[in-house]
Amino acid sequence: MKCSICGGKAALKMRHHHLQLCKDHFLEWIPQQTERFIKKYRMFTHSDHILVAVSGGKDSLSLWDVLCRLGYTADGLYINLGIDGGFEYSSQSRQFTQQFAAQRGLKLHIVNVEEDYGSSIPDLARSSHRGQEKPCAVCGVSKRHIMNRLARDLGYSVLATGHNLDDEAAVLFGNTLEWKIDPLTRQGPVLEEKDGLSRKVKPFCRFYERETAAYALLRGIPYVYDECPFAEGSRSIYYKELLNRLETGRPGAKLIFYLEFLKAKEAGAFSTAAFPEEAGLSPCPGCGQPTSTNGLCSFCRMVGKSEIPAS
Amino acid sequence: MKCSICGGKAALKMRHHHLQLCKDHFLEWIPQQTERFIKKYRMFTHSDHILVAVSGGKDSLSLWDVLCRLGYTADGLYINLGIDGGFEYSSQSRQFTQQFAAQRGLKLHIVNVEEDYGSSIPDLARSSHRGQEKPCAVCGVSKRHIMNRLARDLGYSVLATGHNLDDEAAVLFGNTLEWKIDPLTRQGPVLEEKDGLSRKVKPFCRFYERETAAYALLRGIPYVYDECPFAEGSRSIYYKELLNRLETGRPGAKLIFYLEFLKAKEAGAFSTAAFPEEAGLSPCPGCGQPTSTNGLCSFCRMVGKSEIPAS
Repeated sequence: MKCSICGGKAALKMRHHHLQLCKDHFLEWIPQQTERFIKKYRMFTHSDHILVAVSGGKDSLSLWDVLCRLGYTADGLYINLGIDGGFEYSSQSRQFTQQFAAQRGLKLHIVNVEEDYGSSIPDLARSSHRGQEKPCAVCGVSKRHIMNRLARDLGYSVLATGHNLDDEAAVLFGNTLEWKIDPLTRQGPVLEEKDGLSRKVKPFCRFYERETAAYALLRGIPYVYDECPFAEGSRSIYYKELLNRLETGRPGAKLIFYLEFLKAKEAGAFSTAAFPEEAGLSPCPGCGQPTSTNGLCSFCRMVGKSEIPAS
Repeated sequence: MKCSICGGKAALKMRHHHLQLCKDHFLEWIPQQTERFIKKYRMFTHSDHILVAVSGGKDSLSLWDVLCRLGYTADGLYINLGIDGGFEYSSQSRQFTQQFAAQRGLKLHIVNVEEDYGSSIPDLARSSHRGQEKPCAVCGVSKRHIMNRLARDLGYSVLATGHNLDDEAAVLFGNTLEWKIDPLTRQGPVLEEKDGLSRKVKPFCRFYERETAAYALLRGIPYVYDECPFAEGSRSIYYKELLNRLETGRPGAKLIFYLEFLKAKEAGAFSTAAFPEEAGLSPCPGCGQPTSTNGLCSFCRMVGKSEIPAS
């Protein structure tokens, strides 16, 4: 297998692009493509201050690496969720993240959920009606809240996450299987700033998971290999498995599914007129972030429910 | 396992409906539900003359049986495609269909493709650019053409086909995976009469395949068990397998996928303004059926291409 560019030994074959690249050309290709997506979807420019949400995994660390290589001003945000899972998941992922930032002299903000809110995510979940079975819903609400709070309080103009194509296709697949038109049509590489919620972008949304993993490996970025211990058996992993089967039968199927959706959306295929968003948003009296409820937002209620005052 | 109605021995469990029924109640439930779908989607009334497309399989024979039990005026149309596949597929399915009609004194029209057009479907496919690998595309075009011709020439007001939920979900899945908005939004239990094309309805579109199979078995309707020999390896079978995996993990997933799509469509979720249908249709100079081309329709060109004059 030869590199499509230099004829050297190819390290990765990307059947969906009819492209195979050697290590060096692959490590060039990823930033080139990322830059192309950033421009195509008008994610940000070199005058933006970017906050990258980093988990210590391959996607977010690779994204941070690529953004720095491309010369963007990007600081990191690590949220310590307090998840152990028998192998100190949070502690390990924090170490990989801190090591990455320290080696490159990058600025990293760390939020410790237990210190700031009195309980770790698993503890918050245990005391909330949302998390009786799995803490994933509680974790999602908390991460969104904290990312928005940091981006707003520290004046970042855009929040970047490491979601890859497999992540995006799985979310789209889930919403499509039940034709949830409102969340379906809101999905995309960019979520505009709205009602005080940060502008959010996903520069890696067109890379397959194996491409971001290959980037981290070939670039020598140490990252936490294990999935979050609570992810096992989750619906999104189930959808990813189904999409992987589809991809095996038809290379590129996932990319087509996601890109054709974006094209259809752009061309005006979906009308949300009949599916009004929830009632207007108003600032939560607890934290100031927008909420569709009359009182406290989900996050503040969740923290309040476990009788811990919001920070 | 007890019948939800009478407490007798249940023959079938329908987890998605939280319902399990004995043989007698299941054989009542299928026509009741069919009647409900016919009314809900305004398919036809007792004053309509219905032409049922029968293939000799479980779905179409069960549909014909149910329509007769419900007191509708329904004649049959069998199209002899001339497919052998090593086990005389067409010949077997014709026999099952003729036997069904004769035992009930029902009117059955038989069209023999080879007699009417000079070549069987496999032969037509071999001489057409559409059917170099598989005759399925040629077969689809031919069946649509012949069904429309018969319904129009013999004055039937509606054409009913035995498509079940598994068929419909697979088509929807295929169109959704590539976001083909125009065919996507045209799918539904009823296709209105248009430009001389017959009104088409699918009264079994909400029944799982195993339900129509159970109906045929419990009702003692002999039918051709084997799939068409050309179906193996087809994309629709591949999609059905994926959807079956989804259904195994979440009973009712297929039904939700189809019904929520219909609901979203009804509520105006899709805008086809940006996806205009192909240029206006005009009558084909060969057969009079509408076509989007300037000259002969696909069917006439196909038959012409193999140098057989259109009937």
